[in-house]
Amino acid sequence: MTINIKRTNGLAESLAALTRKGAPKEAALPPHVVARNTEIFGEVLTAHQVVERIVEDVRANGDVAVRKYTKAYDGRDVAEFEIPRSEWDAALQRIDPNLRAALELTAARVRSFHEKQKRESWFNADENGIFGQVIRPLERVGIYTPGGSAALPSSLLMTAVPARVAGVEEIIIAAPPRGDESVPDIILAAAAIANVDRVFAIGGAQAIAALAYGTESVPQVDKICGPGNLFVALAKQRVNGVVAIDAVAGPTETLVIADDSANIELVAADLIAQAEHDAVASAILITTSPSIADGVVAEIEAQATLLPRLEVITASLDANGVIALVDSLDDAITCGNAYAPEHMCLEVADAWSLVPQIRNAGGIFVGENSPEAMGDYSAGPSHVMPTMGTARFSSPANVNDYQKIISLFAASDTAVQNLGPSTVTFAQAEGLDGHAASIQRRLKAKKD
Amino acid sequence: MTINIKRTNGLAESLAALTRKGAPKEAALPPHVVARNTEIFGEVLTAHQVVERIVEDVRANGDVAVRKYTKAYDGRDVAEFEIPRSEWDAALQRIDPNLRAALELTAARVRSFHEKQKRESWFNADENGIFGQVIRPLERVGIYTPGGSAALPSSLLMTAVPARVAGVEEIIIAAPPRGDESVPDIILAAAAIANVDRVFAIGGAQAIAALAYGTESVPQVDKICGPGNLFVALAKQRVNGVVAIDAVAGPTETLVIADDSANIELVAADLIAQAEHDAVASAILITTSPSIADGVVAEIEAQATLLPRLEVITASLDANGVIALVDSLDDAITCGNAYAPEHMCLEVADAWSLVPQIRNAGGIFVGENSPEAMGDYSAGPSHVMPTMGTARFSSPANVNDYQKIISLFAASDTAVQNLGPSTVTFAQAEGLDGHAASIQRRLKAKKD
Repeated sequence: MTINIKRTNGLAESLAALTRKGAPKEAALPPHVVARNTEIFGEVLTAHQVVERIVEDVRANGDVAVRKYTKAYDGRDVAEFEIPRSEWDAALQRIDPNLRAALELTAARVRSFHEKQKRESWFNADENGIFGQVIRPLERVGIYTPGGSAALPSSLLMTAVPARVAGVEEIIIAAPPRGDESVPDIILAAAAIANVDRVFAIGGAQAIAALAYGTESVPQVDKICGPGNLFVALAKQRVNGVVAIDAVAGPTETLVIADDSANIELVAADLIAQAEHDAVASAILITTSPSIADGVVAEIEAQATLLPRLEVITASLDANGVIALVDSLDDAITCGNAYAPEHMCLEVADAWSLVPQIRNAGGIFVGENSPEAMGDYSAGPSHVMPTMGTARFSSPANVNDYQKIISLFAASDTAVQNLGPSTVTFAQAEGLDGHAASIQRRLKAKKD
Repeated sequence: MTINIKRTNGLAESLAALTRKGAPKEAALPPHVVARNTEIFGEVLTAHQVVERIVEDVRANGDVAVRKYTKAYDGRDVAEFEIPRSEWDAALQRIDPNLRAALELTAARVRSFHEKQKRESWFNADENGIFGQVIRPLERVGIYTPGGSAALPSSLLMTAVPARVAGVEEIIIAAPPRGDESVPDIILAAAAIANVDRVFAIGGAQAIAALAYGTESVPQVDKICGPGNLFVALAKQRVNGVVAIDAVAGPTETLVIADDSANIELVAADLIAQAEHDAVASAILITTSPSIADGVVAEIEAQATLLPRLEVITASLDANGVIALVDSLDDAITCGNAYAPEHMCLEVADAWSLVPQIRNAGGIFVGENSPEAMGDYSAGPSHVMPTMGTARFSSPANVNDYQKIISLFAASDTAVQNLGPSTVTFAQAEGLDGHAASIQRRLKAKKD
């Protein structure tokens, strides 16, 4: 096999190749999906219309609607959606003990990392009183876990464990069942290890609607997180505001910066690890080394032929890969900040020296001991990171996503005297005389 | 005048009255707005279609399009949109010195409060290496400041000052000009006091599009904040993802909890201060005191007749006001948490004792010295707070809104040995053999 990856030379050409073209166009729905939706709804509908119908039906009819769509989409006719904890525990016993240990190590490291990130309430007290911020966890969070090949227990851990650390009272997993298989053991085992509270075998837009509005079986949550297919993503957008939602995840991206000191074998392995996700993933190399720029494709080809996902790797590198040769590490960082990748990997002699210059990335992987794959599992920070250039303004999943601030105002007698008159002036300038009067009456009461 | 405010008795009836009915329906556009849009676009368009046209035109044609819509909507034909700092300084000299002092006091207190909230980068170092979070300010933020009676300099301060504290490099104000008046002095003065970087006299959807995509004159920003009319709100939704946006502000709300010890004069004044905002504002009283429940309407009527915005106050209380008499402060808090108001004011004997029970509110105002009006101006925390029940899962405007996290991974040699094997196991279980291989090659390199 041959990989035909785009190559660029110099800063201008590389920046141009890295310019984002906006969110990827929605692909047309596959014929079997359209056919099934047509059968279910009795007419041809767009994905938006399907989601609108399902969400409104679940909102109005609760469990009856959830049961209907679970039967129609997942081929499962059930009385109870909830999977009791005894079944998660049984799944935990059934999975390979090495895998269980790996899940447990990941959960422990994610927990320990996020404990350090937790915010606490604080206040400041002076003669004007006490002003501060009360930090409260969200009460109830729903985490969607997709089915099929996207059923990643690691994503469940990376979302649920920070929520648990934040102090969320009830964490609910929704995962699509499949016929008689129900939810895969590895997902149930991850739910047990993450110590969530409830698991429901519900998938698709009906799961999002159930979590957003509540049904007889499913409690209403305050926030819905987790990846999903197009119908799940559209349903999340649809209920945004009724509950909070996390960002819609785009295709995954890694940008490796390598200099002459880099190990070409490891650079190639890291690009492959990125490209193997799916055909829309982006693996990008920015290097100051002509020999790496020239040699890495052959190395990728040699390594990739050993891997089961060779076709995906080739498709992704051909479509979205870039190998950019630039004059300096400064130029490489300029490219990296402009692209704002989900993962920025520094495989250079003095990786730490570049960290201060990095403005835009979901995660920085410092040095060759820190492959992105370690960040996906056992490192500690969540692997859910901003994609599509949103690292310009977004953060990885973190404890703050599950905490909110309540501002606290407890003004003193002195504050009324100190701050009251200027508040009156300001309110009157804005035409809000009732605001001013509420202060004036207090000023007067103090004087009397 | 007579106020016909809804009254309820007991917990169940009060909770029912406080149940939210979802976001308010979009009112039909006033005929003069439809007429102007029809004139501009040559056909009758919905608000969504108008926004779509404007945003795409500005995206494609930059300043030419901005100039066209500024002339069409604001009656202003200008070569330069930017208002130089010398004009802000002149405005600052022109405004009433008392008002200037009030703006300066507010800005200073907002600055000082938010300094205490700032997050710093941190890391943890152990034998597995260094893992942490790099905190970076957003590079460039745009703040929209509406025109007309909604031109509130306080909102500008409450948004721009936290952004400045966060370390945002460039803060840009966009405000609609009006004919020859340009932007009002009080807005320019607030921009000077907030120490923003640039001010552009551009309004409406064209301002949002210019900030989101950049034009020849206006730089592209990373986040757009600030309230605006329907067209501004739709434009913000339209560009969400290209840049970050803040939450769409709904009608403002205050829920006062009062017991027998409350001063009925001040309770009435605070409800009036809320109701005077606009006819969709909600002023709600939950009280354990029959005499306050019975007497407060007469007190409101007496006070409100003294105020210029009497009509708005009456309209708002009639449409959205509630006076709920409940049996206990516990029931009052249950009502408050269920409603999740923007402002929750505790006018009770031992206000601090209720704070631990409050889960859902934008701000808690503790005791009668802390009227909500003080929170609108001089207290320190931002007055931009979650509305429409979103306090269940959202926070007031704060420094974190302008900072982002970059996760930092710097694993040690030891980490590769310690964490590598389980990472391989986990990746293989997820079918990601390329991920596993990138770790295995490192494990092998260490062994060799």
